[in-house]
Amino acid sequence: MTVTNRQIHLVRRPQGAPTEDCFALVEEALGDPGPGCVLVKNLFLSLDPYMRGRMDDAKSYAVPQALNQTMQGATAGEVLASNHPGFAKGDKVAAKFGLGWQTHAIVEGEKVLKVDASKVPLSYYVGLLGMPGATAWYGTRRILDPQPGQTLAVTAATGAVGGVVAQLARLAGARVVGFAGGAAKCDYAVKELGMDACIDYKASDWKEAFKAATPGGVDRVFENVGGAIFDAILGRMNAFGRVAVCGLISSYNGEPTPIANVRSILVNKLMIQGFIISDHLELWPQAHRELGELVVAGKLKYRETVARGLENAPRAFLGMLKGENFGKQVVAL
Amino acid sequence: MTVTNRQIHLVRRPQGAPTEDCFALVEEALGDPGPGCVLVKNLFLSLDPYMRGRMDDAKSYAVPQALNQTMQGATAGEVLASNHPGFAKGDKVAAKFGLGWQTHAIVEGEKVLKVDASKVPLSYYVGLLGMPGATAWYGTRRILDPQPGQTLAVTAATGAVGGVVAQLARLAGARVVGFAGGAAKCDYAVKELGMDACIDYKASDWKEAFKAATPGGVDRVFENVGGAIFDAILGRMNAFGRVAVCGLISSYNGEPTPIANVRSILVNKLMIQGFIISDHLELWPQAHRELGELVVAGKLKYRETVARGLENAPRAFLGMLKGENFGKQVVAL
Repeated sequence: MTVTNRQIHLVRRPQGAPTEDCFALVEEALGDPGPGCVLVKNLFLSLDPYMRGRMDDAKSYAVPQALNQTMQGATAGEVLASNHPGFAKGDKVAAKFGLGWQTHAIVEGEKVLKVDASKVPLSYYVGLLGMPGATAWYGTRRILDPQPGQTLAVTAATGAVGGVVAQLARLAGARVVGFAGGAAKCDYAVKELGMDACIDYKASDWKEAFKAATPGGVDRVFENVGGAIFDAILGRMNAFGRVAVCGLISSYNGEPTPIANVRSILVNKLMIQGFIISDHLELWPQAHRELGELVVAGKLKYRETVARGLENAPRAFLGMLKGENFGKQVVAL
Repeated sequence: MTVTNRQIHLVRRPQGAPTEDCFALVEEALGDPGPGCVLVKNLFLSLDPYMRGRMDDAKSYAVPQALNQTMQGATAGEVLASNHPGFAKGDKVAAKFGLGWQTHAIVEGEKVLKVDASKVPLSYYVGLLGMPGATAWYGTRRILDPQPGQTLAVTAATGAVGGVVAQLARLAGARVVGFAGGAAKCDYAVKELGMDACIDYKASDWKEAFKAATPGGVDRVFENVGGAIFDAILGRMNAFGRVAVCGLISSYNGEPTPIANVRSILVNKLMIQGFIISDHLELWPQAHRELGELVVAGKLKYRETVARGLENAPRAFLGMLKGENFGKQVVAL
C-alpha cells in the first residue's frame, strides 16, 4: 500500500514571536514498512510550549529543531501496517519521543509503545500520560513534596502541566493558589480543579489579589511562566520554601524577564530547582501509573483543547503560546 | 572586683550605606559574676557582612539588632573571674552566639566554650573555627560537593568565607575561579590560596576575563555578593550546576540587584540553595574539627585583617562592607 504523508516543516526561525510563515506543509509518499517496522497513522499530536525554545538555533536543554525537517513532537495513533512481530494492524500506539507533526510515519517497532485506549482516551497519551503528566508528577512529588497546611503556587495553572500539579498538591493536603489568564480559566481552576484561589494575571490588581490569597505566604512554587509573576511569588516566600522551575514561557520569545527578589533566596533559604523531565525517563512509568489510576478513579480532572487537522497545527501552536488554549492543547489529525 | 565595660550600641538605623553615627560608645560598670556565671574579657571581636542586614528593621533570616543595645557578634576571650565550676581564671573561651561588641561580659558558663589556643591563634575561633568557617564548609561540602575536573566560582574569594571555600574546592580536585576586588587580592588568591584564576571585578574588562578563565563553563558557585557578577556567572553555567547562595553583600544597602539570566536555571537544570549556617548548628563541630586539622597541617591558609580597639570597630565594619579588609576582619580589643 501507499499513503500520502503530510508533514509540517520548520522552514524559518522566528525573530521574536513565531508566525505562521515559519512553517510549511509538505507531502510525501510512504510505502510498506520494512522489516521490524510499522506504519503508524497519527491520530493525535501534542503541542507544547517547549517546542518554541527548539525553534531557535540557541543553546537550550534540547538540540534545536532542524530547518526543513518535520517539527518534532509527541504523537499517539494506530498501526496501519506492521512488519514487526509485536504489532498488528489496529494496535493503538504512542511514541515516547513522538513521531512529529505529520499524519503518518514508518518507524522501528521499538520506538512506539502499545497503549490501552479503553479506559482513557487515546489523546491522553500525549498529555496526562505523556510528557506533561510526567513533568507535573515529577516536579510536584519529587522536587516540591508539598505537605498538608503548606501553600503551593502554580503558574499556567489550568494548562496541561499546571492543572495536574494543582490537583496533586491538593491531594497531598496543600492549599493551592493558581495563576491563569482570564475569568473563565480562573473559574475553572477553582470550581473544577479545586484550587483554593486563582489569580487572573490579566487583571490590573493581580498583585493585590495574590497577596490577599496568600496571607500565610507561599511554601512551594511550580513555575511555568517566569517574569513579573515569578518575581511577585518570590517576594512572598516563607522560610525553607522550594521552587520547581519547569518553564519560563514569558521569555521564550527572547524578551528580558529579570527577577528583582533575589534576596528572598538568601533570606528565606530557598531551594530552586530547574528541571527537564527527559532527564528522568526512569520515573515515567511510575508517574503514568499513578496518574492513570487517579484519572480513572475520578480523582483527577483533565481538560483538552482540540484543534482539528494537521494544517491547523501551526495556528493552534501560536495560540497556545499566547494562552488561548484551555488545558492541554492537542491536534486531532 | 569591678571592671569598666565599654560597649558599641546601635543608636540609629542606616538609610542606605551605614555611617559611623549609627553607632555610639557606652560604658557601664560590671561587678563579680553571680552563681553559675563567668566574667569574660573579650580579646577578639568578629565583624561579618551579615551584621549589615540586622541593622535594618526588616524581615531577614535573623531578628533585627535592637536599637540602643550592644551590637551582637561573635567573640573570643579569656575568663577574668569564674563563679562556675567548669571555668577558671585564665581559661580561653569562645561564645558560639557571641558576646557582642563590648570589652567584657558576665554570662552563664553554658554560653561559652573553653577552647584550645595553643595550636591556632585565639582569634581563629571567631573566623575559621567559628561561623565563617562553618559556613564555608557547609556550603562547599554539603551543598556544592565539587568534583575533580569541575569548575567552581566563588565571589568575595579572599574573604573569611570565600578563601576557605576556594581551598576546600581545590582540595576536592576542582578548578577554582575567584572574584575579588583589586590586583593585590587577586594576586593573593592565585599565589597563596591556589586558585586557578581570580577575576578583579574592579577592572573594566572583568566579564571578558571571566569568560576567558572559564572556557569549559562553571559547574559550582559559592555566591557571597549577588548583582552583576552573580548574573554573569549564571550566564556561564553548565548543565546540572549548583549554586550555594551564602550572601548578597551587593544588595545589603537596599540597592536593587536584579538578575537577568533566569533562563539558565531552566536550560541548565540548576539547583540554587540559599542557606544560613545557624540552621545547621549540629554540623559545626564536624566542620571545625576538619578545618582545624587542615590549618594545623598547613593545608589551609587563613588570613586576617586586625583592627585595634573597640572604638575602631564601627570604622572597620564600614570598611569591610566596602571590601577594604583582606581576609577575615576582626577587632583586637
